Amino acid sequence: MSRVTDHLLVRARGLDAADPLAAFRERFVITDPDVVYLDGNSLGRLPKATRDRLREVVDREWGAELIRGWDRWMSLAREVGDVLAGGVLEALPGEVVLSDSTSVNLYKLAAAACDARPGRRVIVTDDDNFPTDQYILQGLAAARGMELRVVRSDLDAGVSAREVIAALDSDVALVSLSHVAYRSGAVADLPGITAAAHAVGALALWDLCHSAGSVPVPLRSAGVDLAVGCTYKHLNGGPGAPAFLYVRAELQSTLRQPIWGWFGQRGQFDMAGGYDPVESVERFLVGTPPVLGGYAALEGARITAEAGIDAIAAKGRALGAYAIELFDAWLAPHGFALASPRDDARRGAHVTLHHPQAWQISQALRAANVIPDFRTPDRLRLGFAPLYTSFAEVCLGFERLREIVESGSYKAFPAERSRVT
Amino acid sequence: MSRVTDHLLVRARGLDAADPLAAFRERFVITDPDVVYLDGNSLGRLPKATRDRLREVVDREWGAELIRGWDRWMSLAREVGDVLAGGVLEALPGEVVLSDSTSVNLYKLAAAACDARPGRRVIVTDDDNFPTDQYILQGLAAARGMELRVVRSDLDAGVSAREVIAALDSDVALVSLSHVAYRSGAVADLPGITAAAHAVGALALWDLCHSAGSVPVPLRSAGVDLAVGCTYKHLNGGPGAPAFLYVRAELQSTLRQPIWGWFGQRGQFDMAGGYDPVESVERFLVGTPPVLGGYAALEGARITAEAGIDAIAAKGRALGAYAIELFDAWLAPHGFALASPRDDARRGAHVTLHHPQAWQISQALRAANVIPDFRTPDRLRLGFAPLYTSFAEVCLGFERLREIVESGSYKAFPAERSRVT
Repeated sequence: MSRVTDHLLVRARGLDAADPLAAFRERFVITDPDVVYLDGNSLGRLPKATRDRLREVVDREWGAELIRGWDRWMSLAREVGDVLAGGVLEALPGEVVLSDSTSVNLYKLAAAACDARPGRRVIVTDDDNFPTDQYILQGLAAARGMELRVVRSDLDAGVSAREVIAALDSDVALVSLSHVAYRSGAVADLPGITAAAHAVGALALWDLCHSAGSVPVPLRSAGVDLAVGCTYKHLNGGPGAPAFLYVRAELQSTLRQPIWGWFGQRGQFDMAGGYDPVESVERFLVGTPPVLGGYAALEGARITAEAGIDAIAAKGRALGAYAIELFDAWLAPHGFALASPRDDARRGAHVTLHHPQAWQISQALRAANVIPDFRTPDRLRLGFAPLYTSFAEVCLGFERLREIVESGSYKAFPAERSRVT
Repeated sequence: MSRVTDHLLVRARGLDAADPLAAFRERFVITDPDVVYLDGNSLGRLPKATRDRLREVVDREWGAELIRGWDRWMSLAREVGDVLAGGVLEALPGEVVLSDSTSVNLYKLAAAACDARPGRRVIVTDDDNFPTDQYILQGLAAARGMELRVVRSDLDAGVSAREVIAALDSDVALVSLSHVAYRSGAVADLPGITAAAHAVGALALWDLCHSAGSVPVPLRSAGVDLAVGCTYKHLNGGPGAPAFLYVRAELQSTLRQPIWGWFGQRGQFDMAGGYDPVESVERFLVGTPPVLGGYAALEGARITAEAGIDAIAAKGRALGAYAIELFDAWLAPHGFALASPRDDARRGAHVTLHHPQAWQISQALRAANVIPDFRTPDRLRLGFAPLYTSFAEVCLGFERLREIVESGSYKAFPAERSRVT
């Protein structure tokens, strides 16, 4: 290693030695210590507690208790919600519940919001919002003859509060944006935009997929009305784990979502013929909830709450700052450009880089046991999971990345991406 | 045991000895052989293959492959669908896909059907349909200013084809019913009602929750347009496992469902801004699918397909006929009445009994290691799972039930039901 590498590696070791969250890495299954995993913001690692809990749920609960297991499973959606509310999201108990997928939850809450603002004809979002959010809102707008007003964002800097606010008027029913941008990791001005939405009488619905478990989410203090998010990224709930939704307590009994299912029904097992939803957050549930994924989400939420979101966010900022230091020293001279905010306070727990050959480089990284994410057309997204990513691991990953670009070895990989449906 | 018991027990042993599916019981986890499980139509037992597969998915795929696991998980929804289509449902490959919950799927397909029949203002269902189906259809009708026309059914005999057909006219967009009734187990005239719906230009959407994996479901030959169902009953997919949906191949590219999610998007990872759904059945997918529940559904579907739906249905009819024999001999004199069709050809794989103290009796049964289902207000529902329920087990369960009613021991249990949720 070169002198600069030595210097930066020494720094990494010092940062790891001082890291109050360092011990959490032992709480995760790590089968191959040579793998540098920089995609925990797509799929978080498996906590050991989750592996053990899932065996218990499968073998002892499903296998032995059979249908009697529902005596405990019935409250699971709310139990996970309360862990998220108290330990991850700055919400009140009873404001969050596990349910469906992020996309379905967004549909339910966005529809409920539009119904709560009859006569208003506009939904506001931005062009950096995650694609499924845009599609869901497009579908709702089309079905209702509403206008979807799409604000332009700087894709490397996230939502422009100024642009969003300029798009607001008294015809807006709903503002729906992502809190942390999936491309750049930029943190939106959630309090400012929420206040501006309220000022014109609109409701604010935030997608927390990249922020839940990585940065504080001030739902109550900012007066956020509605939110949705997934549990399989920073919350380590496993592949396709159920999503969550948040509805501000004061709004719950006044909003009605469009998918009237029996898990929202008052006296569910009375099997009454007419839909009459409960007043609480369970009003936004629909069908029978997934139990295996629900328990995985519970364990993932618990470990996050135990570590504490402030400590997690602080380490996330430090990991990002360190990665940008490595970028400046090693990568900027090789055709890379920063695709994330440089200011730590404006960034979630990932750093994204532009490179014209990002797709080839991401394949070369995988072959070198570094797992990044590629985001079309030219972005290499490097996610840091404060619960298990070490500074030394980031150093090692960037060292391998530098070798790949300095040697040009990435050119041996296919330049064209084959479609995954 | 009395002479009549001896006689009926000998018959059970003979039936078990001749049962071509007897060996399948060994393929399931059975922790306590004294438990008589008569609720496999609420939650099927755990297949050993599922227990093993889930460990592999958690430990090796999520735990070690991490995000790379999606290379295989992406096709899971379709893989399960094709097993169901080929081995369980009499559908074509590409007509069935795993997705969301039954309720959400019903919402998507019912909405798509109404959109495909613009100008028609009526949805037809019956008052014996499962509550969540009724709620979903109520919500859709309310949102669209449509009429939900609810046909009266005999709750012990299921859907009356005559009544449904009498309710049809050229204003009907959709007929949505359950194939096997959740109370009585009665099998509806799916081909006749579907043909009648088509004759007035309406679409037919069937809920297969109690029929998938228990009786043949002639989707193609009857020309059924749409169907939904769960995998946690007779398909043994585990608690809250994802549901499936079926869309007749000829209709797929012409229908559009209302929840526009990224798993239905053409070139999903191109992250294009505008929703442009694929032509295939994946068009009806929405968000990221649950992987753990999906693999459990896959193993459950496989074991069902391996046994063969005709053999399963034949044994289901025989188990029911035998149970009715026991009912006639032992229970009819003690205040029970049959709440299911006596004709084997008109019954799925459960038999339901009326008793004024059904709730107390169901608690006494649980205490005696017999697990039935209670359905308000006075029904005891006894489900038979041909893959693991033996005739001797049914005999034992009914023997315990007879003791409970003859001794009056059930009167020690609470008469009032405490609300779940």
